Amino acid sequence: MSQENVQVKLANRPVGEPKSSDFEVDRAPVPQPGDGEVLVRVEYISLDPAMRGWMNEGRSYIQPVGLGEVMRAGGVGRVERSNHPDFKEGDTVSGQTGAQQYAVLKGDELIKVDESVAPLPRYLGALGMPGMTAYFGLLDVGQPKAGDTVLVSGAAGAVGSTVGQIAKLKGCRAVGIAGGAEKCDYARQLGFDDVIDYKSENLFRRTKEACPDGVDVFFDNVGGQALEAALARLRLRARVVLCGAISQYNITERPTGPANYMSLLVNRARMEGFVVFDYKDRYAEAAREMAGWINDGKLQAREHIVEGLPDFHKHLMMLFRGENFGKLVLKVSDA
Amino acid sequence: MSQENVQVKLANRPVGEPKSSDFEVDRAPVPQPGDGEVLVRVEYISLDPAMRGWMNEGRSYIQPVGLGEVMRAGGVGRVERSNHPDFKEGDTVSGQTGAQQYAVLKGDELIKVDESVAPLPRYLGALGMPGMTAYFGLLDVGQPKAGDTVLVSGAAGAVGSTVGQIAKLKGCRAVGIAGGAEKCDYARQLGFDDVIDYKSENLFRRTKEACPDGVDVFFDNVGGQALEAALARLRLRARVVLCGAISQYNITERPTGPANYMSLLVNRARMEGFVVFDYKDRYAEAAREMAGWINDGKLQAREHIVEGLPDFHKHLMMLFRGENFGKLVLKVSDA
Repeated sequence: MSQENVQVKLANRPVGEPKSSDFEVDRAPVPQPGDGEVLVRVEYISLDPAMRGWMNEGRSYIQPVGLGEVMRAGGVGRVERSNHPDFKEGDTVSGQTGAQQYAVLKGDELIKVDESVAPLPRYLGALGMPGMTAYFGLLDVGQPKAGDTVLVSGAAGAVGSTVGQIAKLKGCRAVGIAGGAEKCDYARQLGFDDVIDYKSENLFRRTKEACPDGVDVFFDNVGGQALEAALARLRLRARVVLCGAISQYNITERPTGPANYMSLLVNRARMEGFVVFDYKDRYAEAAREMAGWINDGKLQAREHIVEGLPDFHKHLMMLFRGENFGKLVLKVSDA
Repeated sequence: MSQENVQVKLANRPVGEPKSSDFEVDRAPVPQPGDGEVLVRVEYISLDPAMRGWMNEGRSYIQPVGLGEVMRAGGVGRVERSNHPDFKEGDTVSGQTGAQQYAVLKGDELIKVDESVAPLPRYLGALGMPGMTAYFGLLDVGQPKAGDTVLVSGAAGAVGSTVGQIAKLKGCRAVGIAGGAEKCDYARQLGFDDVIDYKSENLFRRTKEACPDGVDVFFDNVGGQALEAALARLRLRARVVLCGAISQYNITERPTGPANYMSLLVNRARMEGFVVFDYKDRYAEAAREMAGWINDGKLQAREHIVEGLPDFHKHLMMLFRGENFGKLVLKVSDA
């Protein structure tokens, strides 16, 4: 066992775009598990747009990460030592490990994952939080019916690509919004009926063209213009699922609210937010169904794996620059 | 019977605030009812913020008023001549009469109203569209539970004052937002637990103070800052009922969307629009319950009656300047 635990801590609360100096890399002794606890050697952590929100002070759906604390992150890894009856050395597990090489967690904070069903990074993607987010956000909040048009922003991302594929599985027309030809091609390969390239096309005109009957469900990961383009095309009793607003996370001026929000009134539509953690009692149900789809070849997943915990900041920024292609996962162990 | 029918027609589509020249006063012969039709002598018409939207071209929840057409308006009056078996001369009725002295409507477009239960103008207020709007918007869309905090903008208006009183009848805490001391006092007399004067108080600070546990239901007639102040104080699973946005109807620059709309995500809340016309199959049910409350002294209503159809524009502008006090009703007959 390595003698030290490399950790990434939040050093400052970022203003606008996170800077390298907002994080510090620390080295601590490897912690030892107490009663009922498990020591996990972390192999991969998830890099998520939501992390940006966790760095801010103030009321949100989850406590902010404290200054000087290890940055919060979902991770998968291997049990190194267990004082909990449900886990033994070598088990593969997922949980909120944080951005570090070793984590001590309580047994009930860990879920066993099966490497023979899917490679470990997928448990941070389609079979992890992004997958659960897509599943519950689309099906529970968006409530699509067969024949509906489902529009998805961030369509090549971890959540959006899964939303589009589930929409197709449910008999909907799926239309994506993504940035750049390569991402749009990828979304088309996944089965999206049409994909709008917001970097080279007129978002409003193309949304109208791609959704000739209007939008029944808009699943929004992006905010800003994508949200306005969707609101402009809502059908009667449409549902706007608020999952994220990555276009707004790093701006320091006043964020842009959707100027045409009264389209919700005209169309008797609703816009609703959700937080995936609220569905944790149903993760197992969803993961079972998603794994079935993946094994049957009906749901494709893709991870973008980068390596090196000390470069946490550099890797994280890929998300906000749209540089990742598939679920962004950071390989930790051999750092 | 008067030999002519004074009518107010839409002459131009207003840009920003409606101008006097956007309307023209015309005099036509009194129309005669055809088979199954009824001639109504209009006594009062309703002046509503929604009229501003009806003047705009383009897709909305209802067809725009055509240029040169009589301005759409709800009205109450007396049957002058009937070719429909359900109505006889002298009956008091309400319907979409338009802004004119005489209207011909089909029998099934009219509802009989009973002057012995309430004076005619009330059938354009608490027992008319504004009352129905308050009733269905609050109870069906807002779904308040006893103990909830219900915040209402435009709290001294026809809709808002009714929303607050129904909220109290349902065991909620009712907090209003209104402009000026007199309107705030009026809302307090109606039973609002607290009222915020947006003209003289800090809306954000006072909303926090008046809703210490947060807002469960926000019923919005105003938009703009009121909406942002409410979003900033939402409780978990709150409901924002979009009824109107009078602060935004006449502006010519880009309207203001709620910059903090992501509070809907953080709080797993929803914002939903509705249109009262969708509930017409249930008007009778609601009107019965509302009339009962009025007769039992549990629901107060107030009308602000102005007179003179040719001054339609001047009276209408009172709405946008916040000059009316209670439901604004225009007396027509003796013009």
